[in-house]
Amino acid sequence: MFLNVTMEEGIARAELARGKVNAINEAVVDEMEACFRGLAADPAVKAVILTGRGKFFTFGFDIPEFLDYAREDFIRYLTKFTGLYTALFVFPKPLVAALNGHTIAGGCMLSLSCDWRVMVSGKSRIALNEIDFGASLFAGSVEMMRFQAGSANAEKAILSGRMYAPEEAFELGIVNEIVSEADLEMRARAKALEMASKDPAAFRSIKLLSRKDTAETMKRKERDSILEFIEIWYSENTWSRLQEKKIHS
Amino acid sequence: MFLNVTMEEGIARAELARGKVNAINEAVVDEMEACFRGLAADPAVKAVILTGRGKFFTFGFDIPEFLDYAREDFIRYLTKFTGLYTALFVFPKPLVAALNGHTIAGGCMLSLSCDWRVMVSGKSRIALNEIDFGASLFAGSVEMMRFQAGSANAEKAILSGRMYAPEEAFELGIVNEIVSEADLEMRARAKALEMASKDPAAFRSIKLLSRKDTAETMKRKERDSILEFIEIWYSENTWSRLQEKKIHS
Amino acid sequence: MFLNVTMEEGIARAELARGKVNAINEAVVDEMEACFRGLAADPAVKAVILTGRGKFFTFGFDIPEFLDYAREDFIRYLTKFTGLYTALFVFPKPLVAALNGHTIAGGCMLSLSCDWRVMVSGKSRIALNEIDFGASLFAGSVEMMRFQAGSANAEKAILSGRMYAPEEAFELGIVNEIVSEADLEMRARAKALEMASKDPAAFRSIKLLSRKDTAETMKRKERDSILEFIEIWYSENTWSRLQEKKIHS
Repeated sequence: MFLNVTMEEGIARAELARGKVNAINEAVVDEMEACFRGLAADPAVKAVILTGRGKFFTFGFDIPEFLDYAREDFIRYLTKFTGLYTALFVFPKPLVAALNGHTIAGGCMLSLSCDWRVMVSGKSRIALNEIDFGASLFAGSVEMMRFQAGSANAEKAILSGRMYAPEEAFELGIVNEIVSEADLEMRARAKALEMASKDPAAFRSIKLLSRKDTAETMKRKERDSILEFIEIWYSENTWSRLQEKKIHS
Repeated sequence: MFLNVTMEEGIARAELARGKVNAINEAVVDEMEACFRGLAADPAVKAVILTGRGKFFTFGFDIPEFLDYAREDFIRYLTKFTGLYTALFVFPKPLVAALNGHTIAGGCMLSLSCDWRVMVSGKSRIALNEIDFGASLFAGSVEMMRFQAGSANAEKAILSGRMYAPEEAFELGIVNEIVSEADLEMRARAKALEMASKDPAAFRSIKLLSRKDTAETMKRKERDSILEFIEIWYSENTWSRLQEKKIHS
Repeated sequence: MFLNVTMEEGIARAELARGKVNAINEAVVDEMEACFRGLAADPAVKAVILTGRGKFFTFGFDIPEFLDYAREDFIRYLTKFTGLYTALFVFPKPLVAALNGHTIAGGCMLSLSCDWRVMVSGKSRIALNEIDFGASLFAGSVEMMRFQAGSANAEKAILSGRMYAPEEAFELGIVNEIVSEADLEMRARAKALEMASKDPAAFRSIKLLSRKDTAETMKRKERDSILEFIEIWYSENTWSRLQEKKIHS
């Protein structure tokens, strides 16, 4: 079990907890998918906070593990992972990301699917830095980045792979609040309670008016982009770069 | 007659005048529709200023009146109202909103359809606050908010229902200028004259290049969103909240 | 030959050089099209810098020359020109615009197709000012302006025709960096080298994830918009305004 879920005053808190960097693997994705399906269906849950543990919200994919995956298995995993962030993007209840630490690659994608991102000030970074290890992105992750930051800012972020400090991420548009570590839980709860105070049917309806077209674009483009991602992932250049990472990590 | 129209130097000024808060009902929408159709066709009209009277641009819908509407009648009204703002969004001549006071809900929607919004400084507020009385929105109003403020800012506004002060609305992107009450007419006229100085065919063509795709999305999504709005409007929770409002107003 | 191309450390530098204002005519477009096709195909080329000469990046179209074009010939030219900027918008390698001077109309369009715009500080201006001589725009140029500046800022720029100072253009979102004349080459090279340092396949893939939908919208809408542009260009009002320009230039 890599997801600790607690409940208080109708607010569910789902904490990723896997190793030192909360790296995402297939078991994490399966567990998150089942967990959020349950949270969506449970009438006692008014809103959800997604957070991490230690110095990481999450580092992103557990790359060493995926280097042992066969191509077909990795495609299956990527289909599940992109399906997860798409489901979170249109999650029918308020969903707040409490970014307790570094929020990298796949971790950044999960955070972009939320309705609000509160990030701790200080040394943590947030990035879609796939380009820096020679990987591409998934179409849905690009669409969510565009949704949050606008097309020009999104492109700047994904073509540079820049590791954004919290203030820079706020400026870019992908972080909504920056708080001290001591205030993170309190501020995330406050935002979740504020959103949970709205009429649930009206909230869900307005959220879908805001996001449904983007979610449909994500679904329409995802399969092709996964296949292109795979081609580049297993290309000679990128593969040798990833192997080096594995040895050094 | 709830719309006072005057002309000066080719600039038509259409002033909403209905009770203390310029509340919108079906008669107002019918009159506006006919009036703007005439202004579009009249070659003497180079540009139009839309404004209100007193402390309100408009408070939005005349809710107590609509609580007596049968479901079918309310659908008919909403179809007319959304048709009106869609027509204004692609009005073939320059259209400036002079926001003399509070610009709420349906009033905010009308203002978002204009080419430029000048707002008085001070205590007036602008909001799509439907969520705060448990109502949803119409797809077209969400699309116009996204057009003016970008998708992330639009979502922040419509999920919170926040009543924006003029400076906040400027920051959000839904107000273009803030002026003193004394300067409102002068500045709105100046902007209308500036836009009216362009070649009319070029202006119309470029405005459509900018807005036509959005207008088509609005039209495509409007009917379904009205039906969903209706479901939520007449739901037990929202209906009892609206009845309370009626009693207290 | 109106395009001087040099190479250094894998960075190609393409300098427009035609008369005092680098005015664009059909020969320039044909030469650019062939040149960039070659640069895309040449494995030695890692990135490209597009720049101008003297006080102009480019003034835009060579209007006096086009006033002698028959309608069919002008349509052919516009089809080529819009095809050029669409190809540049999805150019498969990093493309940096070094805006050495005024960047007007068609010149602004070419700059908007690049991945990054560095502009000299000072008196140079950047604008899509077609509306000010009574012309419309091409759909693709509007889409690129929206991509870079967002829909509301784009509309403000194209309905006003405003000549933006570098700082204003930065604020609007269509210029990414402002530098002194002395630093222009150095900064454009630094950005080109930075982008060229990424894995080429990943860069191309991510750039297309960012831009492909917009490019498809551009292609879908371009033909109709060219025909509408032509109608307005040869209309009595606009034509007489253009003839005056010719006499005075």
